Amino acid sequence: MPCPLRGTASYGRGMEDDSVVIEQFRAAVDRRLADLLPDGAARPARLAEAARYAVLSPGKRFRPMLTLLTARAFGAGPLAALDAACAFEMVHAASLILDDLPSMDDAALRRGRATTHREFGEATAILAAVGLLNQAFGVISGDERLPDAARAGLLHRLSDSVGFEGLVSGQALDLNDRDHVRTADDIDLLNHRKTGVLMVAAAEAGALIAGAPAASVAAVGEFARRLGLAFQIQDDLIDAAFIADTGKDLGKDLGKDAGMTTLVTVLGPQEAAAAVSAHLAAAQAALARAGADGLLARYAFGLFEARKAAA
Amino acid sequence: MPCPLRGTASYGRGMEDDSVVIEQFRAAVDRRLADLLPDGAARPARLAEAARYAVLSPGKRFRPMLTLLTARAFGAGPLAALDAACAFEMVHAASLILDDLPSMDDAALRRGRATTHREFGEATAILAAVGLLNQAFGVISGDERLPDAARAGLLHRLSDSVGFEGLVSGQALDLNDRDHVRTADDIDLLNHRKTGVLMVAAAEAGALIAGAPAASVAAVGEFARRLGLAFQIQDDLIDAAFIADTGKDLGKDLGKDAGMTTLVTVLGPQEAAAAVSAHLAAAQAALARAGADGLLARYAFGLFEARKAAA
Repeated sequence: MPCPLRGTASYGRGMEDDSVVIEQFRAAVDRRLADLLPDGAARPARLAEAARYAVLSPGKRFRPMLTLLTARAFGAGPLAALDAACAFEMVHAASLILDDLPSMDDAALRRGRATTHREFGEATAILAAVGLLNQAFGVISGDERLPDAARAGLLHRLSDSVGFEGLVSGQALDLNDRDHVRTADDIDLLNHRKTGVLMVAAAEAGALIAGAPAASVAAVGEFARRLGLAFQIQDDLIDAAFIADTGKDLGKDLGKDAGMTTLVTVLGPQEAAAAVSAHLAAAQAALARAGADGLLARYAFGLFEARKAAA
Repeated sequence: MPCPLRGTASYGRGMEDDSVVIEQFRAAVDRRLADLLPDGAARPARLAEAARYAVLSPGKRFRPMLTLLTARAFGAGPLAALDAACAFEMVHAASLILDDLPSMDDAALRRGRATTHREFGEATAILAAVGLLNQAFGVISGDERLPDAARAGLLHRLSDSVGFEGLVSGQALDLNDRDHVRTADDIDLLNHRKTGVLMVAAAEAGALIAGAPAASVAAVGEFARRLGLAFQIQDDLIDAAFIADTGKDLGKDLGKDAGMTTLVTVLGPQEAAAAVSAHLAAAQAALARAGADGLLARYAFGLFEARKAAA
């Protein structure tokens, strides 16, 4: 597979500065998340603990980083988008709690720790997820650094990305259609709604907060959409290679996603790899159109390469 | 128990006109809810069906009526608050889906029909609830009849009413503390967070949309808070009277709330009835302070009397 990043002038430059900025942003997100979540004084304490457990577990904070780096690419100060960035992590954590529930993927482990319902019980986990989703809306609607019009616009996009044409429908499609034959288009829709749609909203939020023109907002949204699809297919390729190497189904071992139709099973590994390349190239082209192909690009594509290398 | 409504000049007048206006408002809410919910074209169709099933079941639409009648009391046109009113019904329906889940009250029936999870399965019910809560934020954030500042303010109040100090915490308190001894203050907090808090937000929303002064917004919020507490204690009195009459625990027959501590079990029926009167009188005084003691008062207190009479 040709590397879609080759030939980009900015690659290989400033990597040390990059990692300092990225680590500063990531740490700022973690600190702010800890402030924005209910603490030990909340009643009942167990609900607050469950919410903190789900959100503050170690992670890349990929969605908030998309928001912060997109805002930075369009000239916003680092703090302008911090609360909105945290809101996206809350929504992401809520979606993981729900995906893991006994009635859904019935997962015992997430990032090497017990899932929230295994640690706190199912009712508390569901309420923590609902509380976190709700808190995301509360954080943005109460963010006094943002003009009222920006808040209303961000909240509307957030709602679109979560709702009946967003994450919620992605999870429902995944569960309802698990035994059905899927076409490549079905799988793209599912992949987009299950994960990509929130990345799109996170990236667009950064551009909106920075006051980027509408065409640039759309272009960073397309960047995130393509990147999300590339990530998903790459993960499916990694799973398929693992099965081919070992005869074991990684999904089956994890008690989830067993025997599911993916783009790899529909198209075969070569065409799936070509689709990854095409999505990455389109993502890069979209960023170039937006004039945002600096640190944001190096971070996002670097993360992609690191994930592939680690597999 | 003295009737707190006696002596109010407006009672007994215009009851026919009242019922026409109320029925018009209720029908407008039902029609608009049907438009705002995902329809058969949504994917997956089953998720949309579950959401419609939960919201469009027959009901009084009490929270939306609070919003519409409060907006009317402060001079807003009937349509100005319609979408916000519908958003409160979506949140209410979402909270009922969640309360009924196997991991919570494990209820089979709601308003005489199968609960959403019994009809559509647990995963779809949970996703429908999350989708409905999210849609409530989407409806208000996308309501172009409202100025941006009003939208952001409404959304912030809605989030406060749902979240870690609202409905979500009320449900968690109820589940976590079910076996513990409760004081009268504990029960008031629980009753407020389980139901009253959303009525407060619904009433305040109507006042905010109509541009009422801050003191009036607070007064209608206090009206709704007191009314919600009165409703809850009255329901507990009805349950206690049923047990005393028949020897049967109505809650136990329904497979829920069995043997729970209520204000009636803590204070005894006489003091509990006195608390209802005190809350109703305070609710009425708050409306009078707000200058909103017309149709809104007749509707709310009339509903209370009808519920008591029907028991």
